[in-house]
Amino acid sequence: MFPYLQEIYQFPYPDYRFMPGGNYSPPYSEGWWLRSNGALESDERYRLPAQQRLTFVLVHGSWADAHFWDGVAAVLHSQGHAVYTPEYAGHGKDPNKDVTHAMITKSVVDFITKLNLRNFVLVGHSFGGTVIQKVAEQVSDRIKRLVFWDAFVLKDGESVANEFSPQMRKGFEQLRAGSKDDTIMLPFPLFRDFFVNTATLEEAKRMYAGITPEPAKPLFEKLDLKAFYALPTPKSYVYFYQDNALPQGEGFGWHPHMSIRLGQSRLIVGDGDHFTDTRTRPAMMAQKFYEAGRD
Amino acid sequence: MFPYLQEIYQFPYPDYRFMPGGNYSPPYSEGWWLRSNGALESDERYRLPAQQRLTFVLVHGSWADAHFWDGVAAVLHSQGHAVYTPEYAGHGKDPNKDVTHAMITKSVVDFITKLNLRNFVLVGHSFGGTVIQKVAEQVSDRIKRLVFWDAFVLKDGESVANEFSPQMRKGFEQLRAGSKDDTIMLPFPLFRDFFVNTATLEEAKRMYAGITPEPAKPLFEKLDLKAFYALPTPKSYVYFYQDNALPQGEGFGWHPHMSIRLGQSRLIVGDGDHFTDTRTRPAMMAQKFYEAGRD
Amino acid sequence: MFPYLQEIYQFPYPDYRFMPGGNYSPPYSEGWWLRSNGALESDERYRLPAQQRLTFVLVHGSWADAHFWDGVAAVLHSQGHAVYTPEYAGHGKDPNKDVTHAMITKSVVDFITKLNLRNFVLVGHSFGGTVIQKVAEQVSDRIKRLVFWDAFVLKDGESVANEFSPQMRKGFEQLRAGSKDDTIMLPFPLFRDFFVNTATLEEAKRMYAGITPEPAKPLFEKLDLKAFYALPTPKSYVYFYQDNALPQGEGFGWHPHMSIRLGQSRLIVGDGDHFTDTRTRPAMMAQKFYEAGRD
Repeated sequence: MFPYLQEIYQFPYPDYRFMPGGNYSPPYSEGWWLRSNGALESDERYRLPAQQRLTFVLVHGSWADAHFWDGVAAVLHSQGHAVYTPEYAGHGKDPNKDVTHAMITKSVVDFITKLNLRNFVLVGHSFGGTVIQKVAEQVSDRIKRLVFWDAFVLKDGESVANEFSPQMRKGFEQLRAGSKDDTIMLPFPLFRDFFVNTATLEEAKRMYAGITPEPAKPLFEKLDLKAFYALPTPKSYVYFYQDNALPQGEGFGWHPHMSIRLGQSRLIVGDGDHFTDTRTRPAMMAQKFYEAGRD
Repeated sequence: MFPYLQEIYQFPYPDYRFMPGGNYSPPYSEGWWLRSNGALESDERYRLPAQQRLTFVLVHGSWADAHFWDGVAAVLHSQGHAVYTPEYAGHGKDPNKDVTHAMITKSVVDFITKLNLRNFVLVGHSFGGTVIQKVAEQVSDRIKRLVFWDAFVLKDGESVANEFSPQMRKGFEQLRAGSKDDTIMLPFPLFRDFFVNTATLEEAKRMYAGITPEPAKPLFEKLDLKAFYALPTPKSYVYFYQDNALPQGEGFGWHPHMSIRLGQSRLIVGDGDHFTDTRTRPAMMAQKFYEAGRD
Repeated sequence: MFPYLQEIYQFPYPDYRFMPGGNYSPPYSEGWWLRSNGALESDERYRLPAQQRLTFVLVHGSWADAHFWDGVAAVLHSQGHAVYTPEYAGHGKDPNKDVTHAMITKSVVDFITKLNLRNFVLVGHSFGGTVIQKVAEQVSDRIKRLVFWDAFVLKDGESVANEFSPQMRKGFEQLRAGSKDDTIMLPFPLFRDFFVNTATLEEAKRMYAGITPEPAKPLFEKLDLKAFYALPTPKSYVYFYQDNALPQGEGFGWHPHMSIRLGQSRLIVGDGDHFTDTRTRPAMMAQKFYEAGRD
């Protein structure tokens, strides 16, 4: 019934212990780790002195998989934080694209409970915002803070498509209708202008080469979010002001249109766009997530 | 009838003449000052060549006192500007929290007239915006330019509370109802997310340690501002885009929602939040105030 | 009937070949050029390695002429791009201020067709946005991409004046009524606060010294833009967040209020104002135009 093979997060640099400089700290190291020469060392010197140690669970959005976070995760690791990047149904190596929003949520919830993660900062990007809204309803006692990065914060009863402009919605519906397996593939010109507008053409092509058709159904499912809006969990919103994936204002957009729905929340603003900075400025992104997630 | 003991501004570094480097210029120095060795020197070399010399009167907001400006005032002084930071009724060393908006305004007006200040840039922060609106009505002939920094610009007949979101207003009313002396104390989590969202936890705690309960009444008083809106005084608005103290947009917020009410005004934008940068980046703040206040 | 003497763009540094360092590349050089000593050299080493070579046509706005672009054009040239800055009717050396929007458009269209320019990035600033809207209707097959920099994107049937706030519109109508030749001259205080708000007073005065009364009629002409809104030409919007020439939001402003009308478009954001950065930071501006215009 649920054929998705859950992929336990693989740190993108499986041989990080042998990398020159060796500045990666696995989640279980607690500040000590084994150098490639076998010596046990404190990684204290690799971290910023005042950094609070946090655990991050990063949930990607549409037209992405868990490798979306590779660069940001590496930087956060190097600073002493634990980082998990769960893959979810219909994405990554999952061959089945016929998934529901509930299946996606279940992937992340199962990942968290299986690894028994607690007291973590749960970050959702773009469509991932709707995922962390639903995940939070199920495991709120494990979550330290929710961080929405240019992410959908849906109202109770809304779908992602309800937040598209009429033109975008029409375009996505046409792309969906043209697919054989109920997916939506972003044509390159759309991806280039909306997701990676600040990138060079080379970076844009490199990122585009990694994306695959997105299961359409979850984008059009209306979500019951009554429980979410009753949660007292602390929340942050990270907004990048060159993000062009949704119209910015006049009744649309990430911030303030959707961020405002969180009520009390911490705002952090940066100058990036929707995708590019995960590749080109992972240290900037890690800093913004840290500012959003710390006590 | 008005028991408030007006505190004449004390420059936060009373021994500035003896500080290493000695780069503070008192308001009365007119470019000359006494070194610790007794020599009278021009401080010309300590100032940026192109800086116009200005006089600033800085009016703080709620949950703050005149020391809020210490860092910014020190930088402006060091650049050759004169700086005054009047304390007002219900704040600082004033033990009486039972104050009205008119008493607060009177404190600032009295300070200005007593020192016979003229041709100054009058800066108001947050609630201080409503104070400079009323002060300007009384001493407009002495004011060179009004500068609102993430400050309320109330419409005629409005109160500060009218600009809160319904949720904020409800929260503040509950906090007010729970106090014994009609004040509102910000709980730390609110202060942390809304006022010092970009600060480290340590900075946030340090700043929180300095705040005291805010007299509630002036926040709910409706102000007659007909005279203000007839003033031809030049105006500027300084907006920091990580300021999260009010919702930003959708009918709320500093800019453009309230800044637009100034009509012709000069806009200056920075990347700070509501409180933090006065502590961590006073030179940036001094530069923004200078850009807002110069001819 | 159309007495405007079209001024073929003169590169602002006619003796660029003899400048020290000689780092200007004329449009026709195709990567090779003659040094002052007569040697033919590749200018490859003067360009950023990853820069795509583009052709820019820059269309200025009101209270400006083609020299508005001198600094930006010089930087773009030095990076290997071809740059053209057409003058248009009623501006520059044209003594006739009695012009229509159609005459202005014709100036730019004639410039483009006379030089047989193709595959260029057409940039419009401020009022120039309305010009490139109309130019694009006539020569869309020659245009690679339209770039609006804090520029009007009028709806079909609108005039520029329709996008002013009531207060601005009233002010401009008074200034127009007070002129003898149906022009509008910006008083310095308006220019200083709205166009060069981040400049020093010296820079502001220097820029003000170069401006002349603007023909009023084209600002109040309603434009038929049905053909524009049917064009598939790629589009970008460059927005500077300290730009204060129009109110920013609440139903007014460059972005998102007018940028949103472009539908799919690439957003690039910077921290400048309406005029200043062309003088003080031409390299920043060139970079933003390149980001907006590249593939």
